[in-house]
Amino acid sequence: MSIASMAPDYIRSIMAYQPGKPISELAREMGLAESSIVKLASNENPLGMSPAARDAARDAIGDVARYPDGGAFALKSALCNKFGLAPEQIVVGNGSNDILELVSQAFLAPGLSAVYSQHAFAVYPLATHARGARGIEVPARNFGHDLAAMLAAIRPQTRVVFVANPNNPTGTFVPGGELEAFISAVPKHVLVVLDEAYTEYLAPEQRYDAMAWVGRYPNLLVSRTFSKAYGLAGLRVGYAVTHPEVADLMNRVRQPFNVTSVGLAAAEAALGDEEFIARSAEINRRGMVQLTQAFAELGLEWIPSFGNFVTFKVGDAIGINQALLKQGVIVRPIAAYGMPHWLRVSIGLPEENARFIAALRRALS
Amino acid sequence: MSIASMAPDYIRSIMAYQPGKPISELAREMGLAESSIVKLASNENPLGMSPAARDAARDAIGDVARYPDGGAFALKSALCNKFGLAPEQIVVGNGSNDILELVSQAFLAPGLSAVYSQHAFAVYPLATHARGARGIEVPARNFGHDLAAMLAAIRPQTRVVFVANPNNPTGTFVPGGELEAFISAVPKHVLVVLDEAYTEYLAPEQRYDAMAWVGRYPNLLVSRTFSKAYGLAGLRVGYAVTHPEVADLMNRVRQPFNVTSVGLAAAEAALGDEEFIARSAEINRRGMVQLTQAFAELGLEWIPSFGNFVTFKVGDAIGINQALLKQGVIVRPIAAYGMPHWLRVSIGLPEENARFIAALRRALS
Repeated sequence: MSIASMAPDYIRSIMAYQPGKPISELAREMGLAESSIVKLASNENPLGMSPAARDAARDAIGDVARYPDGGAFALKSALCNKFGLAPEQIVVGNGSNDILELVSQAFLAPGLSAVYSQHAFAVYPLATHARGARGIEVPARNFGHDLAAMLAAIRPQTRVVFVANPNNPTGTFVPGGELEAFISAVPKHVLVVLDEAYTEYLAPEQRYDAMAWVGRYPNLLVSRTFSKAYGLAGLRVGYAVTHPEVADLMNRVRQPFNVTSVGLAAAEAALGDEEFIARSAEINRRGMVQLTQAFAELGLEWIPSFGNFVTFKVGDAIGINQALLKQGVIVRPIAAYGMPHWLRVSIGLPEENARFIAALRRALS
Repeated sequence: MSIASMAPDYIRSIMAYQPGKPISELAREMGLAESSIVKLASNENPLGMSPAARDAARDAIGDVARYPDGGAFALKSALCNKFGLAPEQIVVGNGSNDILELVSQAFLAPGLSAVYSQHAFAVYPLATHARGARGIEVPARNFGHDLAAMLAAIRPQTRVVFVANPNNPTGTFVPGGELEAFISAVPKHVLVVLDEAYTEYLAPEQRYDAMAWVGRYPNLLVSRTFSKAYGLAGLRVGYAVTHPEVADLMNRVRQPFNVTSVGLAAAEAALGDEEFIARSAEINRRGMVQLTQAFAELGLEWIPSFGNFVTFKVGDAIGINQALLKQGVIVRPIAAYGMPHWLRVSIGLPEENARFIAALRRALS
């Protein structure tokens, strides 16, 4: 009997997350120069990061022989100042992926369940199954969350409902009013995890203030990340804002030094550079026009997106993806999200978008 | 009914890990200048990190808008070259803390158990309890692991045995021969987690090759870290070497981007700077003499240590610790490890050790 066979069945049946292909990996596989490759596969910020964040990260390098501040005093203070929060409401994570894991570790176990939508972020089912809990996947409506159906899917043993707004990989969006009505209707014993990884890309007229809702709904958790608009994906920083009792439980199962000192310093600095976020949202808005115009010209269907990516239908996604890779363009196949005929492309710089469009035109012909 | 009350009992009863007090926190509390504080509380490398690692970390800052390589291709290649391993045997963690958590996530659950020693690393019981598993703590012998008693403590539902060598916080050491005899006697359905966080500090005559044992014992996992001798505590990088089937299970529950790109780059570079590790071990050897001579002069009992720290008996540990803090010297109280009359001091630079000794002398008088 092998040692691996002693692990619980629910662990042995997990399929690992499939990340976007790293540039270095494609370069090795195809014999391409790394500099010739355009990666539009992981919804990263094509502008990089805020110069203030870069300087803070460089400074922090000098002290990395020390453990990070596991209490994240400085970053929490900055978040409190910016959003009007108390430090007890905040949990800092190794990316918001860590936040989702901590929720599952604190609230899910065999015999319990979590509700999430079809075509939603892959980590929701992964974190649910890794705890031996049951995942209740609710069919999407027009590729987005069907909140009424999700509400109806909640069972007495349900402890968590995951909602992504905007959603990844489909880019769909639920208006704030509809969302708050949903949250207020969810039973109080169920934690609503509102994943706002892409919230910085919303236009002013789409914005709603989920941070303020946390004070009204003790069963709400808002998850945010520095990996997208803030451009710190490689440094792994995210955070949750929630009721202090929920934060306390998550902090008990949190690894005491889950975020690096470099990440903490960079995130704190990034938070103060609002001009960079505005510039990132603007280049995204223009890239969205560039890409969707091209899809229209090419006669391709796409899903109107509120994030920094667009999901479009090509039919033979495996073949088209392979043809793009051969031309040094990396996008994301999303068969694992139940969308085998679609590809997701992240919005890049204008010239990167142009490279992608040209490669796609060639791949389709 | 509050949402927090819905979490499983075993989560609500967890006491969070107590880290060493950060310099910035003591400075705030005592109104001291940060530069006047000596921190000898977290077994960090007083030399900092290898210059090669620092340069690699700085270079990596430029690309942090990209996600890290979740497969850690380059670091795994470097580890394979150095230790004669296959990449399939390696799991890279966000510090070796992450490795311990992944073991518990993959192999422990309610109804199962883990065995560990009294006075061993606090994360073993934490990770065990966070999975709802039972912790079987085996009384220490002369402050070290009683391997015969640990073997006898294994039950049919036991899935993991944690062994730290050298042990933290007591600094005790089990010779390689005795350790391998233990591993070969452990039932094959139980994973032996051999935590070698301090292995780089062993003298040549104490060394044994646990990496080679991994090929012989499919139920062995060796855990190593870059946080101690390598001086990268703030960047959070550790790794496990184990049977490919065990590594595969751990990689399924691993967060896909658990280690930062800066940490991966720095660790890879650090691995190549053997001169820095030799220098770190040498300054540690000299500091150990400096500290233990002082303990002898002061008439204090201490536990002979094989790590980069010494645990010594003061009786009123709370009072002495407070007197040290007032003088700007941070050491580690270890009441939470069942040693309320002892303190643990990390070995620093000669002048830091002298500052600590002078402050201790004053505190005792």
